[in-house]
Amino acid sequence: MAIPVNPVYFSYVTHTLALISSIFVLVWCISFRGGLAWEHPDKTLIFNVLLRNKHKFRVICIHPVLMLIGFIILGGEAIISYKALPFEKPVKKLIHLVLHATALILGCIGIYTAFKYHNESNIANLYSLHSWLGMGVIVLYGIQWIYGLVVFFYPGGSHEMRRDSLPWHVLLGMFVYALAIGTAALGFLEKLTFLENSGVAKYGSEAFLVNFTAIFAVLFGAFVFFTAVSQPPPHDGYSAI
Amino acid sequence: MAIPVNPVYFSYVTHTLALISSIFVLVWCISFRGGLAWEHPDKTLIFNVLLRNKHKFRVICIHPVLMLIGFIILGGEAIISYKALPFEKPVKKLIHLVLHATALILGCIGIYTAFKYHNESNIANLYSLHSWLGMGVIVLYGIQWIYGLVVFFYPGGSHEMRRDSLPWHVLLGMFVYALAIGTAALGFLEKLTFLENSGVAKYGSEAFLVNFTAIFAVLFGAFVFFTAVSQPPPHDGYSAI
Ligand code: HEM
Ligand code: HEM
Repeated sequence: MAIPVNPVYFSYVTHTLALISSIFVLVWCISFRGGLAWEHPDKTLIFNVLLRNKHKFRVICIHPVLMLIGFIILGGEAIISYKALPFEKPVKKLIHLVLHATALILGCIGIYTAFKYHNESNIANLYSLHSWLGMGVIVLYGIQWIYGLVVFFYPGGSHEMRRDSLPWHVLLGMFVYALAIGTAALGFLEKLTFLENSGVAKYGSEAFLVNFTAIFAVLFGAFVFFTAVSQPPPHDGYSAI
Repeated sequence: MAIPVNPVYFSYVTHTLALISSIFVLVWCISFRGGLAWEHPDKTLIFNVLLRNKHKFRVICIHPVLMLIGFIILGGEAIISYKALPFEKPVKKLIHLVLHATALILGCIGIYTAFKYHNESNIANLYSLHSWLGMGVIVLYGIQWIYGLVVFFYPGGSHEMRRDSLPWHVLLGMFVYALAIGTAALGFLEKLTFLENSGVAKYGSEAFLVNFTAIFAVLFGAFVFFTAVSQPPPHDGYSAI
């Protein structure tokens, strides 16, 4: 039931949506939420970002920024690497593996910033649906990565094992990824609801920016899925190599 | 890339998850949220339910109840009808069509109750990510239903048209359904966040009940997807008829 469209076309839309949602989340965190900090007396900036004080190493990141750009977007690009890139299969496999590993690490750091913010502000941990699904997503993502490494890369399973595992790898990968997109949408809604309770206008520019960031992230996820399930129609001059 | 599992086995899990999440949402709305009403001085009961006063026709429903049981669960059962039911193809087709139509109608009534509650309580309409995605979901669901009716049922397209449309019908149907599950999860999180802001305990039994309802709904959605993409392995004695 593959979609007869050259996946490269879908991948252009996917990359464009990645760019738009990255810009949106950065504008939100930097312009509306006062920037980004790793150690700061204003603890909300830690939620917003990883940024050491002047004399120390600086890294720009934040829970939403790390989770959206680091985890969701890199993870999505990893999923479509076989369909979107013009390289030979073994190269694309390595890119798939490395991009997913990077997404996983940045995702873990991003979750760490949320806990750090909660602990330093005396807010309870792990009470929300967002945080529960978020922990589930990161654990399943890690298991999926290790399973893929062992079966498809090193040491690598037998031919039969790879062949039988592949549909499950694809199916569970899609499920975990859909859960990740849903978790991110929950995060945006939750954060905006907190902000609206402390006075941010329901129809103001910040509310629109946050909602559109979430919508672009959801569309990005949809196009990752479309790219992954499309197959070039015969004779359109495209070679999957 | 079909999953070689008899879809009927998956469908048992799907039905069980449907039952659990239906019971959870009913317990929540009836035992914790004070019941259900269509016309009532306490407007939150309208959000909770459709129930005419004593002298009039009574229907039990509520935004979360109608959306979860009426829209998500009936819609999911409609999706898996081809794989889960033991009837002949034309019968299953009719069931698919009628279940989706019912889901669409109950979904529209469910959305109406949310607007009715907002209007009678002077709360703004359509400000949240949940409401935006919700409107998107119901419109896309309606378009998908009409397209399916015209192409696959009455008057019905040519053989080529049906063949070429089917993968898109499946793909877009899965996308819209995933969006519906995500929208429902957003609704549960949003409602619980409002309740927690007005004093409901973050680790209390109501919070756990709502979060688990959402988790079972997400698992239900996952198993609808697994049922839909599985194909019986050859020679296991199963006949798709
Ligand atoms: C798939 C991506 C994401 C994952 C896996 C994830 C995971 C988590 C986890 C595990 C926590 C719990 C921290 C604690 O309890 O101390 C958390 C908290 C939080 N996250 Fe995310 N997150 C993701 C994306 C986002 C995004 C995009 C936002 C947007 C603003 C966001 C907003 C929040 C908020 C407001 C909290 C604190 C409230 C709560 O615990 O629910 N998250 N996240
Ligand atoms: C796929 C299923 C669902 C759809 C399509 C949907 C759709 C909608 C729409 C269109 C509104 C806007 C009404 C207005 O602005 O006046 C709304 C409001 C609301 N819904 Fe849902 N809903 C769904 C499921 C749920 C569930 C399961 C809950 C769980 C409690 C829920 C909770 C809410 C809440 C709290 C509001 C009012 C706040 C707001 O406008 O966001 N919804 N819903």
